[in-house]
Amino acid sequence: MKTFFDCLPCLIRQTLDSVRSTTDDEQTQESILRDVLKELAEMDFQQPPAAMAQAIHRRIRKTTGNLDPYVEKKRRLNDMALKLYPVFARRIEQSANPLELAARLAIAGNVMDLGVKSNLDEAEMIAEIDDCLTTPLDADNVAEFAQAIDEAENILYLTDNSGEIVFDRLLMERLPREKLTAAVRGAPIINDATIEDAEYIRLAEVARVIDNGSDSPGTILDDCSEAFRHHFERADLIIAKGQGNYETLAGSPYPIFFLLRIKCSVIARDLNLPVGTVVLTHSPHAVA
Amino acid sequence: MKTFFDCLPCLIRQTLDSVRSTTDDEQTQESILRDVLKELAEMDFQQPPAAMAQAIHRRIRKTTGNLDPYVEKKRRLNDMALKLYPVFARRIEQSANPLELAARLAIAGNVMDLGVKSNLDEAEMIAEIDDCLTTPLDADNVAEFAQAIDEAENILYLTDNSGEIVFDRLLMERLPREKLTAAVRGAPIINDATIEDAEYIRLAEVARVIDNGSDSPGTILDDCSEAFRHHFERADLIIAKGQGNYETLAGSPYPIFFLLRIKCSVIARDLNLPVGTVVLTHSPHAVA
Repeated sequence: MKTFFDCLPCLIRQTLDSVRSTTDDEQTQESILRDVLKELAEMDFQQPPAAMAQAIHRRIRKTTGNLDPYVEKKRRLNDMALKLYPVFARRIEQSANPLELAARLAIAGNVMDLGVKSNLDEAEMIAEIDDCLTTPLDADNVAEFAQAIDEAENILYLTDNSGEIVFDRLLMERLPREKLTAAVRGAPIINDATIEDAEYIRLAEVARVIDNGSDSPGTILDDCSEAFRHHFERADLIIAKGQGNYETLAGSPYPIFFLLRIKCSVIARDLNLPVGTVVLTHSPHAVA
Repeated sequence: MKTFFDCLPCLIRQTLDSVRSTTDDEQTQESILRDVLKELAEMDFQQPPAAMAQAIHRRIRKTTGNLDPYVEKKRRLNDMALKLYPVFARRIEQSANPLELAARLAIAGNVMDLGVKSNLDEAEMIAEIDDCLTTPLDADNVAEFAQAIDEAENILYLTDNSGEIVFDRLLMERLPREKLTAAVRGAPIINDATIEDAEYIRLAEVARVIDNGSDSPGTILDDCSEAFRHHFERADLIIAKGQGNYETLAGSPYPIFFLLRIKCSVIARDLNLPVGTVVLTHSPHAVA
């Protein structure tokens, strides 16, 4: 997906949120903001917003020398989600349709995106999750998803954010362990999940865990490691979580199920669905 | 008031709204957006946001050749407000405190600001007005406002937006006609009221009407005409409507009462009040 004009104010806001979490020095903040404005003025709008976000956050890290500005926030999100984990694990066990509920919860966890919302408290998170749990998923899509899982030999699960990754784990627990690989980002970018998050929530208990070698908040294949691309190419089912993976992979010729919550008007327009929609959809290559 | 970092995403969003109302040609839109990003990267943040908005909208008018992109929207806002005028005129007549109600309505009308909200329908406007009418104003401030009006020899009323100007007229009807001058902007800028709006709503029936000679969405004195500055300097009571007039005049050494609805976090922080607050406040020079 290309960068739409509407992404520009959002990228500036995201820059501002991020510089503020990274440094209190107003002169550094101003200097980064001015650099990013210049960079946006010259950017190739055919690239996805995640490519621009990658450039912005590289600049912030380079200018401030802080390689992981969100490290504390990520820990807090993981802890918030881990606290909820046993409750939801039990609800899934007791559910008439465990896969569907686990998928909904994984999508609900997608609210933990500090690229879209700079702050998120526990009450807001629980309200968002409740909202997702009362919004039904398209039954046909759920059936196709279940069938794709049954038929797949190699499942690659692309995680999105820290905190959210705990909810991903709940869904991964419904998938065949021996066929499952979970991928995290290759380096810190906003609050996206990295190998540290996977270790913190012990994701290796339910899947083989790899990183994608990239510091983009999405999956830009050309920017990923060869090892990751190897897994990606041989997967016959890719589960892609969140807006960043959607915007970088939508339209690509792979068998992908996208699980996300629509959090901005640009993605809403692209999917022709309202903001807030709980989405389980797939690429044309994902079903026979 | 200086431009805060938080104004930057908002200025980009405003640019985007405005280019979209002005031209359907995406290449022109993109070219203006890139130019504005470059300009923001170099701007003097000590200037108020209204100075930047002025530069942005000059650029849009120059690039598109459209000298008044908001002309139809302004007409529509005036018509919406004129439709409500008789109802509110009657309510003020019947009110126990006509001045206070008229002031509240004038502030309520400040919702008609397309710089903050690109679209506004009648239902939203009526909801906003109702909200303002149930939020009380500070009684001390109202008493000081009434006293300042009683004591003033030369009142200058700085209007803000089209549509809103109809609500300003309701307040002006409570002021002594012979001492009252109403000022509009000197040229079209967003949906700010100009002399055409004043004529359309027959403002001359209740005040002497002048324009300020400037195309800024506020009152940047250095940018105003000498004739306007003459009125401004000799006024012993200035009534300044809206955020644009507030951000350009707050802190200046003049006897000003500010009437506005707080519509953004930057003004909220400056006034130390929450977004949405109905504000009647004054400069230290406005009371004896």
